[in-house]
Amino acid sequence: MLSERIKKMKPSATVTLTAKVAEMRKNGIDVIGFNVGEPDFNTPDVINVEAKKAIDDGFTKYTPASGALDFKEEICNKLLRDNNVKYTPSQIIVSSGAKQSLINSIFTIVNKGDEVILPTPCWVSYIEMVKLAEGIPVIVPMEEEKGFALDVEKIEKAVTDKTKAIIINTPNNPTGAVYKKEHIEALGKLAVQKEFFIISDEIYEKLIYDGEKHICTASLSDEIKEWTITINGLSKAYSMTGWRIGYAAGPADIVKGMVALQGHTTSNANSIAQKAGVIALKEAEQDVEKMRMEFDRRRQYIIKRLNNMDGISCAEPKGAFYTMPNVKSLFEKEYDGEKLKDSFGVADFLLKEARIAVVPGAAFESPDNIRISYSNSMENIEKGMNRMEEALNKLKVKR
Amino acid sequence: MLSERIKKMKPSATVTLTAKVAEMRKNGIDVIGFNVGEPDFNTPDVINVEAKKAIDDGFTKYTPASGALDFKEEICNKLLRDNNVKYTPSQIIVSSGAKQSLINSIFTIVNKGDEVILPTPCWVSYIEMVKLAEGIPVIVPMEEEKGFALDVEKIEKAVTDKTKAIIINTPNNPTGAVYKKEHIEALGKLAVQKEFFIISDEIYEKLIYDGEKHICTASLSDEIKEWTITINGLSKAYSMTGWRIGYAAGPADIVKGMVALQGHTTSNANSIAQKAGVIALKEAEQDVEKMRMEFDRRRQYIIKRLNNMDGISCAEPKGAFYTMPNVKSLFEKEYDGEKLKDSFGVADFLLKEARIAVVPGAAFESPDNIRISYSNSMENIEKGMNRMEEALNKLKVKR
Repeated sequence: MLSERIKKMKPSATVTLTAKVAEMRKNGIDVIGFNVGEPDFNTPDVINVEAKKAIDDGFTKYTPASGALDFKEEICNKLLRDNNVKYTPSQIIVSSGAKQSLINSIFTIVNKGDEVILPTPCWVSYIEMVKLAEGIPVIVPMEEEKGFALDVEKIEKAVTDKTKAIIINTPNNPTGAVYKKEHIEALGKLAVQKEFFIISDEIYEKLIYDGEKHICTASLSDEIKEWTITINGLSKAYSMTGWRIGYAAGPADIVKGMVALQGHTTSNANSIAQKAGVIALKEAEQDVEKMRMEFDRRRQYIIKRLNNMDGISCAEPKGAFYTMPNVKSLFEKEYDGEKLKDSFGVADFLLKEARIAVVPGAAFESPDNIRISYSNSMENIEKGMNRMEEALNKLKVKR
Repeated sequence: MLSERIKKMKPSATVTLTAKVAEMRKNGIDVIGFNVGEPDFNTPDVINVEAKKAIDDGFTKYTPASGALDFKEEICNKLLRDNNVKYTPSQIIVSSGAKQSLINSIFTIVNKGDEVILPTPCWVSYIEMVKLAEGIPVIVPMEEEKGFALDVEKIEKAVTDKTKAIIINTPNNPTGAVYKKEHIEALGKLAVQKEFFIISDEIYEKLIYDGEKHICTASLSDEIKEWTITINGLSKAYSMTGWRIGYAAGPADIVKGMVALQGHTTSNANSIAQKAGVIALKEAEQDVEKMRMEFDRRRQYIIKRLNNMDGISCAEPKGAFYTMPNVKSLFEKEYDGEKLKDSFGVADFLLKEARIAVVPGAAFESPDNIRISYSNSMENIEKGMNRMEEALNKLKVKR
């Protein structure tokens, strides 16, 4: 009875894993969740206070489908201040999470048979979104040896006359890579020349380490901006995942199409969260910096621990809150009399033996890796790394 | 640069009108908005208190994509208590407004070329949603003389072997009609026999007058339930439009498909609004009843006023907060030297001359009517009706 588009949809590996973890915990097993994709901090107080005020003020009605004007104006202020790129409110759409801004973008520009380039490893939903729009996902693997940097030469080879867009994500989920200005600039020039869009997902922008700098694609030149749809949101920077506020900024005609689509599919994002969003962008930078510093501390610790484990090698991620260790050397090892075989096998083994949940890299088109999120307390990270180390040592014995 | 699906999308007449009204108000013109589709009351206090508590409790993280379990359980309780139909949480999906539950349903069951029957007048987004899913909207006009009742004989004639679903809406936007049990039952039997789905949009369920009773399609028999997707939400009953909480209840495999889709397009609805929703369903019935009574008072007044105006005839709506007067006899009349011509002409005339905003019926596939919402204060309704009467009198003189 299901439509073809739903039958073709891959169930999300992360969702399946989350359900498995919940089941184990229900049975009293103390699993440490390194699979989570959300900050473990509370939403900053200054934001909560504003949201409660919005409720008291009765700001609980429809806003325009594209978002409340004051929030769109504040987003423009933010883009100018933080990213040095000038947008006006008619170039902004507020949606129920960055995810919706992404699907809106794709549905608004991609026709059946259009190709969309996806540098991998990439976030699992990109692929499904392109398929939903009847586009063709064109997978272009980035190289682990280069820290999963944006490889524009490889991308250029994948461009055809059917290429409609590329989706990039910097800082990157799952690799933690932060794309370099020269690489994004080269991609921008290619997009302008070959006339395809860059959907630039910058949701992890604020979580960046070791003095690296986030480069906003649209800021690189007016020409590049004309071919760029910037995606961002409040979830990761302000620890506001449950509030569901994302936004897109792009050429006015594209955004107008996105607004028409959203008007017929969900209308405006939650009004209270929009009001809270104004204050988040204006007044929560100190809170963001505190969270960033804590993430950095955990990052340094977890990288050191992982690189000390036999059979594990881990590039140093410069952004987001993920590490993407290579575990290929474990595939030949045995657990319970069976070879681990692939990233699913490694993740299963770690869940059973170490009671830590990690996401198989295959879910991100990165079959030699697993994704470990360090959005967890230092105590849990320490405990989890100890367990992982012990479990790996057992593997060796069984070899 | 826009995709074909977006190019084919009709801009929403209600959105265009809202923008025009905002522009007029900015210029100091006092327009009365009879175009609005949301209750003019505040969200009940008991709900606001719970939402603020959710914020204080840090209930601001992702919930499962399908919704928080306690809310889904409470929705099941509501469906059993109010509608006498038994669902379990795995048959429920919570979405960002009933609109999203509708588009999820349609995307989950409709393939390219599948026909979806739409009894009209109907809400404008149904048509665009079906087109988005590459389905074919099959318009079946209901008869004004029968109070826009559900005419199953006419529907039966429209059923073909390509019919995948019908979308019904009771109480109805825009007509205010409340479908009778015998008619829905006949439709249900037809759906079971011909194997098509009934997407039953029951969002106005609580706003019902003159002792009429809402009939929940899925409650009519187990067989009918198997072919029904029930759509509902908190916006209209609890005056929670801005919170964006809708839900669908249906066969588990269909709901599973909807959850997969939502997981890749927006994820969960706002977590705070879900927590508030639990209390809305549990403890806000008295507030709903107060609002209903006030709507009823306005309804009775506005019907009387409209039916006293020359050239206007108005069936008595039994639900929702809309009236759908027939204005065909005005089409030949002249204003500013030009014939009013159609429902757009009448709406334009009323906006200019009476400074009241009404929606042209053509927007709902109902070309002889205009939609007047009585979700406005009695004072405004009285003033607006006076203005309308005066304006119509001027028309006559110019004839």
